[in-house]
Amino acid sequence: MVIKMTMFNEVKVIDDYSVKGFKAAGIHSGIRKNPNKKDLAMIYCEKKCNTAALFTTNKVKAAPITVSMANLADNRAQAVIVNSGNANACTPNGHEIARAMCELTAKSLEIDVQDVVVASTGVIGQELSVAPFVNGIPALVDSLSEIGFSDAANAIMTTDTFPKQSAVEFEIDGKTCRVAGFAKGSGMINPNMATMLAFIMTDVSISPELLKETLSIVNEDTFNAVSVDGDTSTNDMVCVMSSGLAGNTEIIGDGDDCQIFLRTLYTVMLNLAREIARDGEGATKLVGCIVSGAPNDSSAKSIAKSVVSSSLVKAALGAADANWGRILCAMGYAEGEFDVNQAEVAIGSVEKSITVCKNGTGVPFSEEEAYALLSESEIRIYIDLHSGEGHATAWGCDLTAEYVRINADYRS
Amino acid sequence: MVIKMTMFNEVKVIDDYSVKGFKAAGIHSGIRKNPNKKDLAMIYCEKKCNTAALFTTNKVKAAPITVSMANLADNRAQAVIVNSGNANACTPNGHEIARAMCELTAKSLEIDVQDVVVASTGVIGQELSVAPFVNGIPALVDSLSEIGFSDAANAIMTTDTFPKQSAVEFEIDGKTCRVAGFAKGSGMINPNMATMLAFIMTDVSISPELLKETLSIVNEDTFNAVSVDGDTSTNDMVCVMSSGLAGNTEIIGDGDDCQIFLRTLYTVMLNLAREIARDGEGATKLVGCIVSGAPNDSSAKSIAKSVVSSSLVKAALGAADANWGRILCAMGYAEGEFDVNQAEVAIGSVEKSITVCKNGTGVPFSEEEAYALLSESEIRIYIDLHSGEGHATAWGCDLTAEYVRINADYRS
Repeated sequence: MVIKMTMFNEVKVIDDYSVKGFKAAGIHSGIRKNPNKKDLAMIYCEKKCNTAALFTTNKVKAAPITVSMANLADNRAQAVIVNSGNANACTPNGHEIARAMCELTAKSLEIDVQDVVVASTGVIGQELSVAPFVNGIPALVDSLSEIGFSDAANAIMTTDTFPKQSAVEFEIDGKTCRVAGFAKGSGMINPNMATMLAFIMTDVSISPELLKETLSIVNEDTFNAVSVDGDTSTNDMVCVMSSGLAGNTEIIGDGDDCQIFLRTLYTVMLNLAREIARDGEGATKLVGCIVSGAPNDSSAKSIAKSVVSSSLVKAALGAADANWGRILCAMGYAEGEFDVNQAEVAIGSVEKSITVCKNGTGVPFSEEEAYALLSESEIRIYIDLHSGEGHATAWGCDLTAEYVRINADYRS
Repeated sequence: MVIKMTMFNEVKVIDDYSVKGFKAAGIHSGIRKNPNKKDLAMIYCEKKCNTAALFTTNKVKAAPITVSMANLADNRAQAVIVNSGNANACTPNGHEIARAMCELTAKSLEIDVQDVVVASTGVIGQELSVAPFVNGIPALVDSLSEIGFSDAANAIMTTDTFPKQSAVEFEIDGKTCRVAGFAKGSGMINPNMATMLAFIMTDVSISPELLKETLSIVNEDTFNAVSVDGDTSTNDMVCVMSSGLAGNTEIIGDGDDCQIFLRTLYTVMLNLAREIARDGEGATKLVGCIVSGAPNDSSAKSIAKSVVSSSLVKAALGAADANWGRILCAMGYAEGEFDVNQAEVAIGSVEKSITVCKNGTGVPFSEEEAYALLSESEIRIYIDLHSGEGHATAWGCDLTAEYVRINADYRS
């Protein structure tokens, strides 16, 4: 089955992150030294969920990634356990710890150990002990609540400066449904087929196959369209769980219901992806690069990602400098065949952009106006190649000295 | 003909950068505002040279690149004209200016305009006027000298903090020969098939076909093995000119003479490449990543380049932090198939390294010793994949807040 998203209407974003059947919690368990920093999160659903997930394409996969891949072989899950402060990657006891996290969770919740998804984020290569989980996981279970998602979103943060949550309410089959999720990002962000950590919950009833396919489709234009620093992490995971408690007839193929679900999943994942880019390590600005008129979608995407990933473009945007020559340079080394001599480039804020380049060469513009627009907290770069119908958008952030400071100090 | 470099003996590096038949000069012509900063360089040979060059693979090619490509169609050149302070890229009058630079040079030197190579480096997208060249080029010709190479090396610098020169003396066919060159680097450095700007001169007599082939072979392991910031520039060029004045019998195929020439060209280009990495924008350390035991050379190269290009690895090295997990992460997203579970990693200085990872997981090491070793100005990362005979080395630098400062301010 090949499904394409065709619905692009506005959807109703809400700020209530609860979803029928789900509870969550986030606590400090002692993995992190700072007692004020939560480091352990749980999601629990009162029934088994159809569950789809995408994982990092990095050849170095953290232990929780391989354990979750095995546990999700049946596309079913009922709980998620996540720690921050330690990636549980590249250590001798990694699998033992990841499995212990699942076992303690299953035991405390009285569910099947196969139905637990496990994830970790933090420093790579430091051994994690089972101790914080032995008391932490039962304590988490005790604090599970229908309004616990903010605590959970807080507990998975590493160098993130704010938690990232998004929720949408909509109707399918006469039933009110929700999709809600939370994510962490900040560094080592250059998702490729998967992402940092993101957990999405819905009460929509949808078949496991379709859930997987919709996740893949939406992921391509959301998390896979984000880059903070070009480093694809060892721990990336995005996981969608559907409780089916909304009461709609199970969605099993393309059609209006499927399109509504796709559209809402897209909205939630795009919001989370953009928040991840906005909160990139050291970032002061969210940058969106919108490419149109490309020979095809894939060259449009490669150009958009190349521009938002260029250190030189990012450093210029950090200084609100309309150095469009660096944008053309980054377009020029993107993959795909296209003619840069047709390129038109406009840059600015969300509200207003000014054309800086036509036919691949510069045109006069007001440096003062460009500086003012690029000083906003959200930047747009519009590129029209005038060579076809291909289009794509990528999201990134500016590069500041703070990025270097954060990453020089991270382990200490 | 497929030639492989087989000779790996030490060669005699000298600090006299003159080569029989060649003269050079560097002056301030007014392209840059600062009168103390040279901005125009010339190389001239008393006879026509067999000449080979490689150019940027960026789809956006600066005007001097396309003009030089055309002029070098016959593999012959007698002079090079280069300006800094302006890339002469992405402007409406670019080709006109590049051709005018060639014409003024040809007229002043009384040579054929087809025998002039032209190059530019600096800001992209700002119109260059012909004015500085009208007086500058005749003045350059007047100041040409056999010891003018340092002035020329100075005149092509942009954000470079020191000029980059290298020379080797050797014997072929009983004749004393030389290869000498100079280069500029610093930012937008991620050569792909070609490089920043590098000009190499030799008095060895060698056929144009063989000169081209040796340049390509050596380039792969020198300039193409360097990354400062992942941005492949629009103006990259490496050019080798051979005057043939050493008096040796022309080298036309593989054999001892060809191997000696390969080896010396390798030494000069590797020295220049390493100096470019060492002087990367904001860099405080030269980083060499030596990969061995890979299934093949191409996966070794992709791993080595991935490690030296990772922003997170580079930021950690800037802080002398032995955060080897980031090295494994960067290996994991490199192209090629290999088993990271076999990987052994050692890090340190040129003199001493310590093992931090075996079989893909961490081993105990002294953080204090690692900190001391990584505080040196030259860092080595050794990776052995224990999976074959493939090996490669890549060169890079650390990432500091200074990189961001330089690139936020560059255009202003």
